[in-house]
Amino acid sequence: MEITFELGYALDTFYFLICGALVMWMAAGFAMLEAGLVRAKNTTEILTKNVALFAIACTMYMICGYDIMYGGGIFLDGIVGDGATGIAEDPATYAPSADFFFQVVFVATAMSIVSGAVAERMKLWAFLAFTVVMTGFIYPMEGAWTWNGDAVFGMYVLGDLGFSDFAGSGIVHMAGAAAALAGVLVLGARKGKYTADGKVNAIPGANLPLATLGTFILWMGWFGFNGGSVLATATVESANSVAVVFMNTNAAAAGGAIAALIVARILFGKADLTMVLNGALAGLVAITAEPSTPTALQATLFGGLGGILVVLSIVTLDKLKIDDPVGAISVHGVVGLLGLILVPFTNDGSSLVGQLVGALTIFVWVFVTSLIVWLVIKAIMGVRVSEEEEFDGVDMSECGLEAYPDFTAGRS
Amino acid sequence: MEITFELGYALDTFYFLICGALVMWMAAGFAMLEAGLVRAKNTTEILTKNVALFAIACTMYMICGYDIMYGGGIFLDGIVGDGATGIAEDPATYAPSADFFFQVVFVATAMSIVSGAVAERMKLWAFLAFTVVMTGFIYPMEGAWTWNGDAVFGMYVLGDLGFSDFAGSGIVHMAGAAAALAGVLVLGARKGKYTADGKVNAIPGANLPLATLGTFILWMGWFGFNGGSVLATATVESANSVAVVFMNTNAAAAGGAIAALIVARILFGKADLTMVLNGALAGLVAITAEPSTPTALQATLFGGLGGILVVLSIVTLDKLKIDDPVGAISVHGVVGLLGLILVPFTNDGSSLVGQLVGALTIFVWVFVTSLIVWLVIKAIMGVRVSEEEEFDGVDMSECGLEAYPDFTAGRS
Amino acid sequence: MEITFELGYALDTFYFLICGALVMWMAAGFAMLEAGLVRAKNTTEILTKNVALFAIACTMYMICGYDIMYGGGIFLDGIVGDGATGIAEDPATYAPSADFFFQVVFVATAMSIVSGAVAERMKLWAFLAFTVVMTGFIYPMEGAWTWNGDAVFGMYVLGDLGFSDFAGSGIVHMAGAAAALAGVLVLGARKGKYTADGKVNAIPGANLPLATLGTFILWMGWFGFNGGSVLATATVESANSVAVVFMNTNAAAAGGAIAALIVARILFGKADLTMVLNGALAGLVAITAEPSTPTALQATLFGGLGGILVVLSIVTLDKLKIDDPVGAISVHGVVGLLGLILVPFTNDGSSLVGQLVGALTIFVWVFVTSLIVWLVIKAIMGVRVSEEEEFDGVDMSECGLEAYPDFTAGRS
Repeated sequence: MEITFELGYALDTFYFLICGALVMWMAAGFAMLEAGLVRAKNTTEILTKNVALFAIACTMYMICGYDIMYGGGIFLDGIVGDGATGIAEDPATYAPSADFFFQVVFVATAMSIVSGAVAERMKLWAFLAFTVVMTGFIYPMEGAWTWNGDAVFGMYVLGDLGFSDFAGSGIVHMAGAAAALAGVLVLGARKGKYTADGKVNAIPGANLPLATLGTFILWMGWFGFNGGSVLATATVESANSVAVVFMNTNAAAAGGAIAALIVARILFGKADLTMVLNGALAGLVAITAEPSTPTALQATLFGGLGGILVVLSIVTLDKLKIDDPVGAISVHGVVGLLGLILVPFTNDGSSLVGQLVGALTIFVWVFVTSLIVWLVIKAIMGVRVSEEEEFDGVDMSECGLEAYPDFTAGRS
Repeated sequence: MEITFELGYALDTFYFLICGALVMWMAAGFAMLEAGLVRAKNTTEILTKNVALFAIACTMYMICGYDIMYGGGIFLDGIVGDGATGIAEDPATYAPSADFFFQVVFVATAMSIVSGAVAERMKLWAFLAFTVVMTGFIYPMEGAWTWNGDAVFGMYVLGDLGFSDFAGSGIVHMAGAAAALAGVLVLGARKGKYTADGKVNAIPGANLPLATLGTFILWMGWFGFNGGSVLATATVESANSVAVVFMNTNAAAAGGAIAALIVARILFGKADLTMVLNGALAGLVAITAEPSTPTALQATLFGGLGGILVVLSIVTLDKLKIDDPVGAISVHGVVGLLGLILVPFTNDGSSLVGQLVGALTIFVWVFVTSLIVWLVIKAIMGVRVSEEEEFDGVDMSECGLEAYPDFTAGRS
Repeated sequence: MEITFELGYALDTFYFLICGALVMWMAAGFAMLEAGLVRAKNTTEILTKNVALFAIACTMYMICGYDIMYGGGIFLDGIVGDGATGIAEDPATYAPSADFFFQVVFVATAMSIVSGAVAERMKLWAFLAFTVVMTGFIYPMEGAWTWNGDAVFGMYVLGDLGFSDFAGSGIVHMAGAAAALAGVLVLGARKGKYTADGKVNAIPGANLPLATLGTFILWMGWFGFNGGSVLATATVESANSVAVVFMNTNAAAAGGAIAALIVARILFGKADLTMVLNGALAGLVAITAEPSTPTALQATLFGGLGGILVVLSIVTLDKLKIDDPVGAISVHGVVGLLGLILVPFTNDGSSLVGQLVGALTIFVWVFVTSLIVWLVIKAIMGVRVSEEEEFDGVDMSECGLEAYPDFTAGRS
């Protein structure tokens, strides 16, 4: 082979691996964010969920998910055989295993979104059972429609309709939120969150430094999430694109944080840290559908729109008594949809109709299948802990370990 | 274009982006360090400040800071137009957006230094107002003098005088500390820190694991900060230089930590963790002005000098009743100056006179302009919270959220 | 030089530096893991130990360790002279300093393993004295046998016997555990851990989010640890190998977490988070001896074996009254041995006999020399704090600072 081909292959592979490692790192971000936003008595369980879901996602995607999404018979070929070349070109321009590695951490991201929304009252093993189906089947199916160009049940091809989702505002984030929403509806709100007279009680998170750390981790990991989605970096054109994506991803997060800070100040009179954090994340979600075509200024404004929307959405969901302890449905779902809708403003290859059809397709697929799975799990093993267990915290009932035994001894 | 040119372009771009992501990560480091070193009741506010300042810095630098520092009309050109090619060569050897991304995270670092020093008693919105001016104007002005080669008010060019500051011991760190010092002088010490009879009361930080994590994050991020400042890596010469910089950055941090550990043991009789952390950071600051020419042994010793100096400086500032809760002025200011002074020992292209003139120029510019801005803000909206708010903690008055509600209930 | 050679040199160097930075990041992982698993009153001390050991390891390895392990007279040559070219080819295909940087962070990893096992009762300065010898002499000696091909005391060459340890299941992890075991035996168990009637008391860690964060950090850093051990990435063959290593490292961690989750559920009836974390780490240790030849499925299964073994080992060590607060001896020692034994199943270049001889050689060397050093330190300065200091926590006696003063005031 030409040595220049080898160098390009090596650089693209290394780029995929580093971006993949950054996306893997997002799992830590979700874990810290969620652990910081729940009460102390439910912390061990949400940590356990986050580690376990990542492990299950990686394993299920290897067993069947990658195969469903990109074809190639990964599992039967034993991986790193020909199987992993599903989407790599022929001859491959980067290592097939690097592609698998990059894809597998995306699945985990989608699943991480669910865990926060159902926090503080779901049975751990019910959640893990759902994880198996979501990461092994539900996500790979809809992922194949866009990123592998498969027709939706043989009916229509989303790309042909002008649907474009660069790094997954819809395919990953809104999909995760759709599964979360189905779970929350089956599960119901936490005790005491909404009172009979229509009041919404704030249930503050136990550890805001952790939540902030989680947000910074996600912010950093997102460079890999969006930057890696250019899928190549070894030419001037692709390198420029990756650079724009990094710049815009950062700009959108900044815009989202600032907008949420200001909106929260106007609505609540204070600089609400949790809203600022959700604003930054909303900015990131909003730009994810198309980070390569906006200018930095546009990216900042798009992120800002996300930051405004997420605050309004969180308030609205509470009015609807949809109890999402960490705001995941608003951040990833509502703003994920915004991200899809914003694409046609800077990307001529997409259309508003295409974006809406794509969003609807993904949402309906994930929401309906998830609802069915949640209901089946509910019928078989139940999804909700007992009232007493909820009052005492799921840490003791599910994990048998307090998260902070030296700090919370003798308190509720 | 030649494919070898494309590969070099791509590698340099990727290198800038990864280094930039590591510098962005330093924002999380500052947030955790500062959150760990303040009391529980002031934690939410300092977290809010750290996220918000990063977001504001990124936005202001895009709007006008990059333009002031490197020219090119970033904002009007809409970014990623020709504007971003301000300092990139023609033809550019790496993506213009990657340069912008790398530069923008430096501004945020300078600003992060300020937030710790003014902790526990400043009004949040006063701080954010200062952030706008610092990141949009004060820092870019002095940055242009060295890194863009502009004459200081048309009078003299620092580089011509033998001033050299590789990655910003002066331009970034001492500048941040100068702004912090001005803020602290306007603000005054925390209530109870210094008693009338001249006693200094230790006010211990609430969460030392967080402070340690923050230090490790900064240590890691510094590889990007210094390593990226070589500004190229796609040749044998530049690659060797980047490698030396990584090695020396690590060695200096190690030397600083060990020296501070020993000095604190001698002075206080104990292994004072906060001094060890500040020692590691001091080692990093000390090597930042020139990490590419010392040997690893020299880097360790230079870092060690920083570690000794920072302990002495922290003790001295307390004697002067300059109240800096996290030691930022000592770490970044005093040791930043040390770093500048050490450059001529290993870099023939610099001179002691040049270093001192440069240090003085930067300090005077940043300190005086910052002092003016702080005073203007004080006149307009005030800079200090009320005594009662300070006693109760700024978390409730500024953010309306406790950082650790499950652990601190019912305590002061 | 050919420009293609330069590009390959630059890419390999950058790859080493990024992998090295990820391994450095593991120091933060160990610090958080251990800080999360000890009681609040022993947290400052373990953080101090972790920062200090990293700094000492970096400095000792520079002074003499690298020289012992790879030759070349690093220290006398002043580093970044010819000395650092010890193992680099001639002409070097990557920067010598990058090699030093990558190697130096490995030493620190080996040492980090020790600190957790001896937590909560060892004198800080005794530990640091051991660190000097371990990182400057004991580790470099055994490292030279495999990775530099030196004969074991002039008697036999491990590589010739079919010993293979890709990234250090034995050389780094089991070695660290052997030193830890020697320390624990000299030190004895914590007061109250084992009662006279043979009961084992659980002593829960104070901060499980920290422990989880530490595990995620280690998981991420391990991509650099194993991925960098391919030692090159600038060709199709090496790039493919690095990609397989990343994929398998992740798969093994996932397998370990799932296996430990299930085994703990069966044995203890709950989803024990600390076991899940140790399971993930065990998966990582198990694959470290050979991450480049298994398929992803095999890697998952090998990791799973590690996850099962670590739970059984932790239970068994407690029955033997070997008190290891964080499970480091089980994770790194017992599973490190497993990793070595698994190599011949997928790597034809190794043999079971070779692996056992190598494991025995490393273990005997490190255990015996460590035992001697611990006993010498015990004779000179003592290794254990007083009973009263242990009861009050080593934070006050060794560091003079509480880790969480606002949360634990007025409690034991």
